[in-house]
Amino acid sequence: MSRPESSFVTDRATLVRRLKMILPAHCLLVEDEDLRPYECDGLTAYRAMPLAVCLPESEGQVIDVLRTCHQLGVPVVARGAGTGLSGGAMPHAEGVVLSLARFNKILRVDRDSRTAAVQPGVRNLAVSEAAAPYGLYYAPDPSSQIACTIGGNVAENSGGVHCLKYGLTVHNVLRLRVVSIEGEIFEIGGGAPDAPGYDLLALLIGSEGLLGVVTEVTVKLVPKPELAQVVMASFHDVARAGDAVAAIIAAGIIPAGLEMMDKAAAAAVEPFVKAGYDLDAAAILLCESDGTPEEVAEEISRVMAVLTASGAHDLRVSQSEAERLRFWAGRKAAFPAVGRITPDYYCMDGTIPRKRLAEMLAAIAAMEQKYGLRCANVFHAGDGNLHPLIMYDASLPGEWERAEAFGADILELSVALGGSITGEHGVGIEKINQMCVQYATPELEAFHRVKAAFDEKRLLNPEKAVPSLHRCAEYGRMRVHRGELKFPELERF
Amino acid sequence: MSRPESSFVTDRATLVRRLKMILPAHCLLVEDEDLRPYECDGLTAYRAMPLAVCLPESEGQVIDVLRTCHQLGVPVVARGAGTGLSGGAMPHAEGVVLSLARFNKILRVDRDSRTAAVQPGVRNLAVSEAAAPYGLYYAPDPSSQIACTIGGNVAENSGGVHCLKYGLTVHNVLRLRVVSIEGEIFEIGGGAPDAPGYDLLALLIGSEGLLGVVTEVTVKLVPKPELAQVVMASFHDVARAGDAVAAIIAAGIIPAGLEMMDKAAAAAVEPFVKAGYDLDAAAILLCESDGTPEEVAEEISRVMAVLTASGAHDLRVSQSEAERLRFWAGRKAAFPAVGRITPDYYCMDGTIPRKRLAEMLAAIAAMEQKYGLRCANVFHAGDGNLHPLIMYDASLPGEWERAEAFGADILELSVALGGSITGEHGVGIEKINQMCVQYATPELEAFHRVKAAFDEKRLLNPEKAVPSLHRCAEYGRMRVHRGELKFPELERF
Repeated sequence: MSRPESSFVTDRATLVRRLKMILPAHCLLVEDEDLRPYECDGLTAYRAMPLAVCLPESEGQVIDVLRTCHQLGVPVVARGAGTGLSGGAMPHAEGVVLSLARFNKILRVDRDSRTAAVQPGVRNLAVSEAAAPYGLYYAPDPSSQIACTIGGNVAENSGGVHCLKYGLTVHNVLRLRVVSIEGEIFEIGGGAPDAPGYDLLALLIGSEGLLGVVTEVTVKLVPKPELAQVVMASFHDVARAGDAVAAIIAAGIIPAGLEMMDKAAAAAVEPFVKAGYDLDAAAILLCESDGTPEEVAEEISRVMAVLTASGAHDLRVSQSEAERLRFWAGRKAAFPAVGRITPDYYCMDGTIPRKRLAEMLAAIAAMEQKYGLRCANVFHAGDGNLHPLIMYDASLPGEWERAEAFGADILELSVALGGSITGEHGVGIEKINQMCVQYATPELEAFHRVKAAFDEKRLLNPEKAVPSLHRCAEYGRMRVHRGELKFPELERF
Repeated sequence: MSRPESSFVTDRATLVRRLKMILPAHCLLVEDEDLRPYECDGLTAYRAMPLAVCLPESEGQVIDVLRTCHQLGVPVVARGAGTGLSGGAMPHAEGVVLSLARFNKILRVDRDSRTAAVQPGVRNLAVSEAAAPYGLYYAPDPSSQIACTIGGNVAENSGGVHCLKYGLTVHNVLRLRVVSIEGEIFEIGGGAPDAPGYDLLALLIGSEGLLGVVTEVTVKLVPKPELAQVVMASFHDVARAGDAVAAIIAAGIIPAGLEMMDKAAAAAVEPFVKAGYDLDAAAILLCESDGTPEEVAEEISRVMAVLTASGAHDLRVSQSEAERLRFWAGRKAAFPAVGRITPDYYCMDGTIPRKRLAEMLAAIAAMEQKYGLRCANVFHAGDGNLHPLIMYDASLPGEWERAEAFGADILELSVALGGSITGEHGVGIEKINQMCVQYATPELEAFHRVKAAFDEKRLLNPEKAVPSLHRCAEYGRMRVHRGELKFPELERF
C-alpha cells in the first residue's frame, strides 16, 4: 500500500515528557502494547503506530495537549470510536492520537427546543436513546451507529439510510464548540436557520479533523414518526431496479430510505440475518415510508404503483415493526455479512447521478473480470451513493494491490460519470489520490488556503483529505485528470 | 447615520484609465448622473457614490476587472438587482461597483437531473418560469423574487415563505463557479449529496460578496406540488398565536409556509390588497400545506385541530388557487403596504426561538413607547424569523436615529433571547455593529482568517458583514457584549 510523504520529525522523549506534565498517568499511553489498538481505524489495510495516545477527560486537557503539540510542531490525529472507513483516524507515525473517548456525556436533552448537547465521544445511538423518553430521536443513522461517535460523525459528515429524507450530519447539527490547534475555543452555529457571518459550521462539518477539535456538539432532534413501513421489491434486471429508483424520485416521493442490494450482496446477507430476501432477484430494493398512518398508507400505495410500472416482479410490504426491522437488518448487516464469506473486503463509497446506476453496475461487472475479484454491491440508491464491497484475501500476494486498483477504477469512473469519490465515508488517507481526479488545482489551492486559516503549521491530521499539489502532480503522471483518458470507452457503458 | 472607517485611497484617474482599457464604453459608467442610481440598495438610509460602475458582459471581463482592482488595491462591491435590505450592495466611496446585471442567461434546465444552470444576474422568479414547462420550480422565494437575482440570493443565503419546508438558498444550490479577487476561477460543489473536501459551497453561500464573485450557479429544482392550500387563523391574543406556531411544529407538522402578522401589519395591508384579513384579530396566522390532494387534506385537518386547540377564534381555508394567492398577497405585500402609511420604515430581521415569540412582541410594544415610534410586525413564524417594520419620518430631525436605536434594541434582544441578528437579510453595513453582540473575539478572528484565505487585501466588499475587532471595541464602550447588561430586565419579559 502507498504511504504518504512526511515532513515531520518528532523528538519522542521531549514530547512524552511534556505530555506527562499536563496529563495524569491514566490519560496517556506511550507503551507499544497500549498503542497497538490505535494503529488503524475501520480501514484496516492502512496502519501506523503513533508516538503517544492522549485520553483527555476535560476540555482544559484538550487545550493543553493541542498547545503542546502546536509548540513542538507535532501532528495530532483526533479519534472517536475508530469505526471510520477511509482511514481518517489512522495515526501519524510522528504524531499523537487525541482520543475523545472519555468525552462521553450527554449534557442536555431539551424537549421544547428539540435539541441535545452532547460531548463528541457519545455514541450516535446513545443520543437517540436519551431522546426516546420525549418521543424524539437523532436522524442520521450510519450503519455503525451502535459504535460510532457524534464527533466522528461531525468529522466525516456521516449519513445513513435515512439521510435521503432527513439529511446528513451537516443538516442535523446546530452548534459546535471547537478548540483550535493553538488551544483557543470558538463556538459556531446557533439555533437560527442561518447564523450571521460565514458558515463555519458547514465548513467544520466533514472537515475530517483538519481544522479543529470539537468538544461539544448541539444536535437537532426530530419526532419519532408514528409509523414506518418498508416495501421490498425484487427485480430480474439491475438496470430496471436503477430506473425504478429514478422513477420514485421523479414522482416527487422522498422516501425515508431507498436502498438497493445486488444478487451477490443478498446472497451474502441472507444466511446471516434470514431477512427473507429473494435470492433469485438480480436486485432488491427497499423503500421506507414514515409519518402518520394515513401518510404512510398513501405513500406506500404510490411507491408500489411506481415499482410495478418499473418492472418489479415481487413486492412485499412489512406488516409489523419486527418485519420492518428484519427487512433492514440485512441491509444494515451487509458489511459484516460480506466479511463472513471473504477473508477481507474493501468498501468503496462513490456517488453517481441516479440515472447512471445501471451503467456503473455493468462497468463494475467488467472490472470483476479485469481484476479477477468478486464485488457485492449495496447502495444508498436514493442518493446515488454506492458501496461496492470488493472481496479479496490479503494473505495472497498481489490481491490487496488488485483490490486497491479496482477501487480506484470505481472512484474515477464515478467522477467521470458526473459523481464524486465519496458519499459519506470521507477521503481520509484512502481516497487522497482520487482527490486529484475530483478537483483541479484552483479548488485544491482554495482548500489549502482554508486549512492555513485554521492550522498554519498543518498539524491537525496531516496528509489526509486534501492532497498536496506535489502529490497530485505525481499521481497525474500515473493516471489522468478528471478521468477523461482513463475511461476512453465511457460512452459504451 | 454612522459610516464605516476606511483605509482605502484610490487614484480615480488611474482606475478609470485602466478600466477603459479592459471594458468597452457601454460596460463602464463613470459620470455622476450614471453612478447615482447605484448609490444604495434596498437599505436606502445608507448611501455612498462609487468611483465607477462596471457592467461586464463576459466572465473574461469579470476576471479583468477583478485583476485590475486587485493590482491597484481598489475595493470591489458586487451587485445584483440591488434589492437587498442590509446594504450589502452599498458602494464603497473609494471603490468600484461590479454589476452582474448582464449575466442574465439561463444556461440549461435539465429535467432529468432536476437542475438548472443560470448566470447570477437571472431573476429568482425567472428560474421557476423557465422550469415550469417541466412541472418544476426553484423553491426559495424571497418576497422580492420578481426582481432579486440568484447571485444576490447566493450572497445573502436568501429564504422566503417556503424555506421552512424547502430550505434556504444553501439547501437549493448545488454548484458555483466563482472568480477570486485575483481573477482565478474555481468551481465548488457538485451533484453529490456531500462533495469531498471542505464545504466551500456552504462557506461561499451567504458570504455577502466578501469571498469571491459568482459567475454561474447550478440550482436544484423541485416538482410543483399538485395542490397547495392555506389555513388563515385569527387570534385575539398574540401570545396564543405564538404558542400555536410552536404547537404546530411540536405536532411534527412541517408546513410549506407558516407566517404571522400582527394587528398593525394587517391594518396596513388590508386596504392595499383586500385579502380579507380579520382586522379585529390581534394576530393572523397563515399556514400552508402542499402535496397530493390526500396529503394536503390530511395535513390541513391536523393543522386546524392544533389551531383550534391553541385558541384560534376564526379559521378559513383557501378554496381555490386564486384565494390562496390572495391570502398570501397580503403577507408578500406587507413591506410596500407599510410604505404607504408611513414616509419611511426600517425593516429588521432578527430570529428568536419560536417559544419566545410572545415575549419579543411584548418587548417591542414597550420599545414603541420608549422611542415614540410605531412598529408593524410580520414573521416567518415557523423559523422564528421576525420582520418588525419600524415606521418613522426621515424628514423629522432625530427620527431616523430613534428608529436605528429601536432596531438595534430589537436585534440585541434577539441575541439575548437565544436568537440571532439576521434570519435572511444578511449583515451588510446595517448590522455590522450587532455582530459585535452576536460573536466574541475568537469567532470574529476565525471569520477574519477565512476572509484572508480568499482575499488577503480585503478588497471584496470591505467594511461589510464582519466587523473589525477595533470597531467592536469601540461599540462595546457604548453598548454591552451579548446583551447581558443591555437587558437586565430580561427575566421579566
